[in-house]
Amino acid sequence: MTPDIILIRFGEHTIKGRNRSQFEKRMLQQVRGVLAPYRRAAITRSYGRIYVALNGEPYAAIAERLKDIFGIGSFSPVRRVENILETIQAASLDAMLSLSREPATFKVSVRRVEKSFPHDSQQMNQLVGAHVLRAMPRLKVNVREPEVELRVEIQPEGTYIFSEVVEAAGGYPFASNGKAMLLLSGGIDSPVAGYLSMRKGLEIEAVHFHSYPFTSEQAKEKVIELTRRLSHYSGAPIKLHLVSFTEIQTAFAQAKQDNLIITLMRRSMLRIAQMLAVQSDALGIVTGDSLGQVASQTLSSMNVIGRSAELPLLRPLIMMDKEDIIRIAKRIGTYETSILPFEDCCTLFLPKSPSTNPNLNVVSKVESFVPELEEMIAQAVSEVETLEISPDDKLGAQAAGDDDWF
Amino acid sequence: MTPDIILIRFGEHTIKGRNRSQFEKRMLQQVRGVLAPYRRAAITRSYGRIYVALNGEPYAAIAERLKDIFGIGSFSPVRRVENILETIQAASLDAMLSLSREPATFKVSVRRVEKSFPHDSQQMNQLVGAHVLRAMPRLKVNVREPEVELRVEIQPEGTYIFSEVVEAAGGYPFASNGKAMLLLSGGIDSPVAGYLSMRKGLEIEAVHFHSYPFTSEQAKEKVIELTRRLSHYSGAPIKLHLVSFTEIQTAFAQAKQDNLIITLMRRSMLRIAQMLAVQSDALGIVTGDSLGQVASQTLSSMNVIGRSAELPLLRPLIMMDKEDIIRIAKRIGTYETSILPFEDCCTLFLPKSPSTNPNLNVVSKVESFVPELEEMIAQAVSEVETLEISPDDKLGAQAAGDDDWF
Repeated sequence: MTPDIILIRFGEHTIKGRNRSQFEKRMLQQVRGVLAPYRRAAITRSYGRIYVALNGEPYAAIAERLKDIFGIGSFSPVRRVENILETIQAASLDAMLSLSREPATFKVSVRRVEKSFPHDSQQMNQLVGAHVLRAMPRLKVNVREPEVELRVEIQPEGTYIFSEVVEAAGGYPFASNGKAMLLLSGGIDSPVAGYLSMRKGLEIEAVHFHSYPFTSEQAKEKVIELTRRLSHYSGAPIKLHLVSFTEIQTAFAQAKQDNLIITLMRRSMLRIAQMLAVQSDALGIVTGDSLGQVASQTLSSMNVIGRSAELPLLRPLIMMDKEDIIRIAKRIGTYETSILPFEDCCTLFLPKSPSTNPNLNVVSKVESFVPELEEMIAQAVSEVETLEISPDDKLGAQAAGDDDWF
Repeated sequence: MTPDIILIRFGEHTIKGRNRSQFEKRMLQQVRGVLAPYRRAAITRSYGRIYVALNGEPYAAIAERLKDIFGIGSFSPVRRVENILETIQAASLDAMLSLSREPATFKVSVRRVEKSFPHDSQQMNQLVGAHVLRAMPRLKVNVREPEVELRVEIQPEGTYIFSEVVEAAGGYPFASNGKAMLLLSGGIDSPVAGYLSMRKGLEIEAVHFHSYPFTSEQAKEKVIELTRRLSHYSGAPIKLHLVSFTEIQTAFAQAKQDNLIITLMRRSMLRIAQMLAVQSDALGIVTGDSLGQVASQTLSSMNVIGRSAELPLLRPLIMMDKEDIIRIAKRIGTYETSILPFEDCCTLFLPKSPSTNPNLNVVSKVESFVPELEEMIAQAVSEVETLEISPDDKLGAQAAGDDDWF
């Protein structure tokens, strides 16, 4: 069928209480952004839903974009026809035949708002149901748990018909829950952590640590590309803070505590990330930590590393299986970039046996012996390079003018 | 088909590196526990897999239990037959016909370890494939992305055949990643947070705060029941610490800072949980927090609340949609108990407008004005009641002897 309208629903459980109208406004903004190229499409709002009248604009292309908007729980393509029994029956059957997968069971739910329509809703349930069943002999009625619910709403201006419910991203509207700083390494996990945070309504800025010249220009391009991919979902530019970690890393390497170097590095990274977060009014730090995955992600390590930050450490992947993380990375389009082989500063000096059980007192002592650690951290923050990455930037174009970037 | 053997695989990405043998040992322990009632079943280990020879014990009942064991990625029912072409062909077809859902595509993968077998693996692929295709005319071969892979392994002692791969819980073997303290409220979220933590290899102890006589005996039974449900997955008893919060809660109520009372309460709860964690050698605190869900779960609130604990705060649900949390709660069997209506101490005095943006200085000041807060916290810890909850305890029996519990 060719839909006339798209009915957009919010996530059921997320949008409630006193923030509702604010959330709705943000959602509306996002939908307007998606529809900007489709000038004939018209938006209306009603009872906590959004209706898009297509007026001839293409359903499929718009639907593809709506799927990625945070805060949309689901949407349905809707047909609008005249209030004539036979027309309603034909359009209802058409809606059932257009489903991407033929269901085994269905039920009809008719709502008659236009009381002058000659058949009441009970009669209409039967008249529409019988018409569909005659044409689809394998289909059965199941009133309690139907696979598909065929909805028919008879309004004064016409009858609205739909049967398909398309799952969308869910979550909260972008930036409706505050701002956080994302530690973006270039691996598989941190972009997924960033995506899930944005889906939950966080605005994010990203911070990446490089050890140029030990890490390469490609490593930088990789992180820019990951940020760009994330910005596709926010629909807004994302700030990427690039921090030179060479000096601090070299100082730690000279401390000759090989098995503690990852712990030491990550503590200083958190401190820098926190300082950048405070500058940006971000109230939390998001990491891609997943429990037990590597030495720095044991409970003991997280205990020692985490104490270097006071802001809440948000670890969306902490209890997730690697398989599930990879699945999300592939779905959101960051996986292929993440597995490019360029070293980041944490893989660079990876010791043979990083400590899985570092001692806080020892770590603090080593830190106190590193000359001018505080100054190096302050300098790294003050010399941060901040890029604004937009969904539409061309990587090639940007990288080309960037030869002297480091 | 009637399987002779169950082939058990670990999660692919989780079990690697130097912890592997330790993880394998723990898994083996869990599998042994499940098999204890089935005395003829025999376990062998080989190349990072576990094989269970059923020797007549029932596959279905054992499979049902294996699905819930943490660290098992998947398993397959395997048939073992004699090294005779026709027997192998018949058993292969049988394996394909026994699949729970008929696939559209498949491929055959034969491995010939026994070199005296007269057909090589290429020939066998065709001989077995053709036999299956003749009997299943709708099936097609797809070598690249088959829905089902029919595996045939010709060993000296016999040929092993399987086609079904049953997904299991995944994660890490229970208690292989350390111990944490779970804040268990009685709501929908915290049991799910506990389950996901256990699945990721954490041993957990649970702490629950009650305000008897304002909270009821039923609220306690509810939390015991939730703990019991969780202990079903650990296969080991779980300690449940019941902390009387009445005095502290009353003191905060008298401070006349209604909009801050949830913040104040949660800070003291965290401090108590941390003290109990230290007593139990737990290195982290697990909560059911989900960003933005309620006033205490905004970034600002988490910022002020979280600072009262030094141990890592692990929030597995922080970026999860409520719909997904509910789905897991239903699957693990905690949902029905969680939605029982008994009040816990956080819903009890819920103010009309709890602060979503508490100020750390104000909160600290209010705390400093509460007489003897430190002493009350120490007392709550010292008077904790600790139960050990096992999967097999009968709730009725335990509750019956418990009239004077508070």
